[in-house]
Amino acid sequence: MTADSRRYVILAEGAFGEPNSKTAMGVIKYGRDPVVAVLDSTRAGLNASEWLGPERDVPIVATLAEALPLGPTALLMGIAPRGGKIPPEWRAVIVEAIEHGLDIISGLHEFVSDDPEFSALAVTHDVELIDHRRPPERLEVSTGRRHRPGAKVILTVGTDCAIGKMTVALELRKAATDAGLDAVFVPTGQTGIMIEGWGTSVDRVISDFMPGSAEWLVAQAEDMGDWIFVEGQGSLDHPAYSAVTLGLVHGTTPHAMVLVHQPGRVEHLGWQSKGLAGARIKSIAENIRMYELVANQVAPSKVAAVALNTSLLEDQEARAEIDRVAEVTGLPVDDPYRFGPERLFAGLRSSLEP
Amino acid sequence: MTADSRRYVILAEGAFGEPNSKTAMGVIKYGRDPVVAVLDSTRAGLNASEWLGPERDVPIVATLAEALPLGPTALLMGIAPRGGKIPPEWRAVIVEAIEHGLDIISGLHEFVSDDPEFSALAVTHDVELIDHRRPPERLEVSTGRRHRPGAKVILTVGTDCAIGKMTVALELRKAATDAGLDAVFVPTGQTGIMIEGWGTSVDRVISDFMPGSAEWLVAQAEDMGDWIFVEGQGSLDHPAYSAVTLGLVHGTTPHAMVLVHQPGRVEHLGWQSKGLAGARIKSIAENIRMYELVANQVAPSKVAAVALNTSLLEDQEARAEIDRVAEVTGLPVDDPYRFGPERLFAGLRSSLEP
Repeated sequence: MTADSRRYVILAEGAFGEPNSKTAMGVIKYGRDPVVAVLDSTRAGLNASEWLGPERDVPIVATLAEALPLGPTALLMGIAPRGGKIPPEWRAVIVEAIEHGLDIISGLHEFVSDDPEFSALAVTHDVELIDHRRPPERLEVSTGRRHRPGAKVILTVGTDCAIGKMTVALELRKAATDAGLDAVFVPTGQTGIMIEGWGTSVDRVISDFMPGSAEWLVAQAEDMGDWIFVEGQGSLDHPAYSAVTLGLVHGTTPHAMVLVHQPGRVEHLGWQSKGLAGARIKSIAENIRMYELVANQVAPSKVAAVALNTSLLEDQEARAEIDRVAEVTGLPVDDPYRFGPERLFAGLRSSLEP
Repeated sequence: MTADSRRYVILAEGAFGEPNSKTAMGVIKYGRDPVVAVLDSTRAGLNASEWLGPERDVPIVATLAEALPLGPTALLMGIAPRGGKIPPEWRAVIVEAIEHGLDIISGLHEFVSDDPEFSALAVTHDVELIDHRRPPERLEVSTGRRHRPGAKVILTVGTDCAIGKMTVALELRKAATDAGLDAVFVPTGQTGIMIEGWGTSVDRVISDFMPGSAEWLVAQAEDMGDWIFVEGQGSLDHPAYSAVTLGLVHGTTPHAMVLVHQPGRVEHLGWQSKGLAGARIKSIAENIRMYELVANQVAPSKVAAVALNTSLLEDQEARAEIDRVAEVTGLPVDDPYRFGPERLFAGLRSSLEP
């Protein structure tokens, strides 16, 4: 079964539509392979279109047995549990899927293909176990490589994790392509890799080689096109993920950064109600100052646009917030997912092609 | 052969006394096991005491054969090659050492115990192959753990890599111990681990779990004592290593940082003459501003002292530079390696015990 012809059932038990089901949402919204069903017993009977728009007509079912008549060829792990281990309660459905001849597609830190039970069953039932987070066999620190002349490297950065950095990069790539430009999306996490078919899950790379991996991803992208949109990870002030964020900033040395923020989100995901100073999400102005200061230690860069994830706001509030942030920052601001990426990309382009 | 009773010959071919031989220098200066010889054919006939003072009387020899009569029981890799691979030209001496019954002690990224030739020989000759950089089997992100009341966590940070952060932490621990306090040194790199017998080489940990490892090291240290000196890594503006540095800053949430700088060093190690913006070492004031801004995103912290590595200066110049930096920063400043750590620790202590 090649990647081209897979038909997915996506496991998102208890979480579809929530931030930690971003893999499920991303693959349905942006992936090229069809998704026949989502497994989430707490939302069974609903449809993915209620979250992702009418053209994403994917039923949500309670059990794998209900999904099987729809003809899936692979079970895709659609949730990113904290720490990336295989939750014990998933084992039964993974076994059931293998026994029904489905490949297993995972982006977890704990590899399904290293699991003795799954591996043995996979041989018996002739299915593939694919771990998209497995890092390349590459031990290289960054080298200070310069960008190819003509290449424009744009990194999405965020005020939190799971806030829309991949989505914004994908939307901006689409706008650039629609504008007739040669544009590339650079996947740095498992969902992006599942969508795009290449890339590296940089948070899985050995720390010493993480910035070197980011540098190498951009080198590959510069052979594919001129407008390079790198998917960001984490945020520079998220206590658990800031190191990976900084490795991307210093490893990709972007010409410009696009800051992604969700109005209404006040504390970092997973750190709510801990009463820790680091839990609070700082203002857009503070974030711009911090990202620019830190990036410019290594190479000239600027935050050239702000992408708002306005999913917590009504249409009119969203428009007003976009205008307010544009006024405060003096930058191009929009919600490219909700209102289309064209205006944001046009603003970004004019700041990079003076 | 247990660690207690090892007698080392240290491989530092072509590099003894240079920044990338810091493992060799650190183990001779601070290690508890005797070192019988250093292997460096380019400096054969000299003595480690010429770099490390008269009490470190270790001959430098050209070949392992010359070292064998001195009774070594282990060959220790004393150089950190960029990227951490086993240089092909070391293989012959490693094989020769194993054949003479010596254990191999390494902190490289490429593990000697994973090498088929070395492993087979080690079995034949009944020697141990020890890789101090092998990370723990632990996949945990950081959790926002709070420090034990009474614990004081101090992280050494630097304006560059290989500039003295481990040395400063070890010297401050000594001063705290000498002052009758319960003090702990937390090794975060292979040399520190070789010296202290515990710790984690954080740059070898999977990126996603690196801040969690730093948090865990401090949790362990808080069971050992009150004054906790964490060995820093890299620097926040070194393009290749900044991610690891930030993971330590946000993972250990230090009450105070001690900034280590070498007057006279103008470009980052390994990035000299590349003409890159990121190569330039910024001023002490810029570094203090950057470290404090970034650290305070997560937890209150401050740069509470500056440790100068004055090895490029004569005694009188060194004293003058210490006075100048104290004047400019308003902080306790000294070279704890050259002039003793007591004054620097006293200053640090008074700022943490107001």
